[in-house]
Amino acid sequence: MKSIIEKYGHKRVTIVKGGITRHRSIFNGLKVFAENEFSNQLLQKPEVVIIHDAVRPFVEEDILSKVVMAAKEHGAAGAIRPLVSTVIASAPDGFLDHSLERARYRASEMPQAFLFDVIYQAYQQCTDYDLDYGTECLHLALKYCKTNAKLVEGTADLWKVTYKRDLYAAESIIKDSLSKQVCVITDVKEPVARVGFLIHESLKSQIKVEAISISLSKNDSHLQNNFSGECYNFVSVNDKKYDIEETQQLVDVLEKSNVPLLCPVVVISVHLDFSENVSFSIGMEELSKIKKFAGEAKKKNVLVYGLLIQYRDHLLLQERVNSAAALIMALIKDRNPEMVGQLLVA
Amino acid sequence: MKSIIEKYGHKRVTIVKGGITRHRSIFNGLKVFAENEFSNQLLQKPEVVIIHDAVRPFVEEDILSKVVMAAKEHGAAGAIRPLVSTVIASAPDGFLDHSLERARYRASEMPQAFLFDVIYQAYQQCTDYDLDYGTECLHLALKYCKTNAKLVEGTADLWKVTYKRDLYAAESIIKDSLSKQVCVITDVKEPVARVGFLIHESLKSQIKVEAISISLSKNDSHLQNNFSGECYNFVSVNDKKYDIEETQQLVDVLEKSNVPLLCPVVVISVHLDFSENVSFSIGMEELSKIKKFAGEAKKKNVLVYGLLIQYRDHLLLQERVNSAAALIMALIKDRNPEMVGQLLVA
Repeated sequence: MKSIIEKYGHKRVTIVKGGITRHRSIFNGLKVFAENEFSNQLLQKPEVVIIHDAVRPFVEEDILSKVVMAAKEHGAAGAIRPLVSTVIASAPDGFLDHSLERARYRASEMPQAFLFDVIYQAYQQCTDYDLDYGTECLHLALKYCKTNAKLVEGTADLWKVTYKRDLYAAESIIKDSLSKQVCVITDVKEPVARVGFLIHESLKSQIKVEAISISLSKNDSHLQNNFSGECYNFVSVNDKKYDIEETQQLVDVLEKSNVPLLCPVVVISVHLDFSENVSFSIGMEELSKIKKFAGEAKKKNVLVYGLLIQYRDHLLLQERVNSAAALIMALIKDRNPEMVGQLLVA
Repeated sequence: MKSIIEKYGHKRVTIVKGGITRHRSIFNGLKVFAENEFSNQLLQKPEVVIIHDAVRPFVEEDILSKVVMAAKEHGAAGAIRPLVSTVIASAPDGFLDHSLERARYRASEMPQAFLFDVIYQAYQQCTDYDLDYGTECLHLALKYCKTNAKLVEGTADLWKVTYKRDLYAAESIIKDSLSKQVCVITDVKEPVARVGFLIHESLKSQIKVEAISISLSKNDSHLQNNFSGECYNFVSVNDKKYDIEETQQLVDVLEKSNVPLLCPVVVISVHLDFSENVSFSIGMEELSKIKKFAGEAKKKNVLVYGLLIQYRDHLLLQERVNSAAALIMALIKDRNPEMVGQLLVA
């Protein structure tokens, strides 16, 4: 936990030792604000505290704000969701006792928020049984402080990452959110500018495209501004065949920013093949150069892929560009670290 | 529905018109066995019926068998799972009324099984309110036939594909199950046989590998036997540089089988580069040939990818093969239709 906080530069975080059950851990967290023995320095007691599960990583600011405002007014508040399955009570012999009417019940989710005094007093009055077997903070506020929590409808994203399938779903959701924007970098010179424009046009029906039509080397600061945004995908259209100098510069700028620290960044190095000749070929030496470079960038969480577009015929160019755009989208969505350094052909 | 049944050659399926609610649809399904008006020919009344949701596609034979046997003995049975979240009752004003003790309750899942007479009699006695607002078949068996269902612990795979994230999870689970076995096909001649053996060794720590060390053209029937199994992945190590003749034959055999009808099949065409010369190169003509061939195979649900292994140096070969195995695993796991026809370099 300490190394995560250090690595990602989190501020204003106090770590508290967990207990052997959920409620004992939460109680330890609350004590930091009220009991000196739990930290060297007593933290300022907040009016409202939020309790959340790390196992629900996709919590949005909106629901946090809603439960806090409701807790401020009513003393306690928690996110709820409709039940997906009917809930039943089983008898001790393993037979159905009764089933609950699904419409009358809700799944209690996190985040929940409380006036500090309400939840802290509730925990202070808890029995050992509560602390060892209880699962619901709203229940404690009701039982010990007579506070009926306000229930706030949450979004489906609040689900608990519990089973292996939830890890798959979480990975896809993260990849989806990283695939919403791409930055296309081209030179102003023709024909690179033209290809850059066509790629832009072909991509924009599927993804938000930011186009930068300047030579990268001449204006680092413009590019750097893009890193403060939400862009984790870059397409660099290169002037010279297999020249990775410009892509190298882009990767350098990315490394200096903190963007690849949080998420893997995709960089697609696009090369144009102008040869009229059908017997055009790709040298193994150039391929090795791209692979080696991509191998180094991968260590810094930048995934570099090569993409060759044949520019032999103006009439066929649009078709090639569409094929390139499909490959660009596939590379961005997959973010597959095994495929770095490969040169794909559109 | 009819076209699905026809396409996949399902037998012994009778389609029944659904109702406007869950219970009305199930009731229609039961009537086929008891009321002439619901089908031209009255189907033979079964002793036990299973009710299942299509939205739980990963049901295993084991749980079906368990609920059937329990229903035969006790009249009714259903799959259950532990609750993931606490369940609460909300008051009409949107505040917490009370929370349920999580350990005493279960989520009621599908499949469920019933003696036909029990569930049919239950549905016959249902009120319109039951049919319009009810969600639980076990409840009907209890209420109208005094049959307490036996509850059977199900697996996590029974979950309901409900939200977008569940589609992501389902896709990953299917891809996972298709990536359990690979068939490596090589010639008996050296050095192809040696590379085939090394690929086999490198892959087998990650996936079950079936090796076929015969020339494909000479023994189609041996290969065909593999298609009756669970293999959806093939690595064909080719003798001649960029010669796709053997891969073509493999795809032909696959097409004749019904394997690609159910799931996309991955075929990786491995080529060896023996050139001592660093200035070795890949011709665009060969690349176009692989791309065109892969484009045709894709229409038949066979995903063909090319993979080049440099065989210049015996000492480096193992490293190349490991890199090839990593790419093979990535291609098999992703099954990305956009990447077909690309020639990757190990």
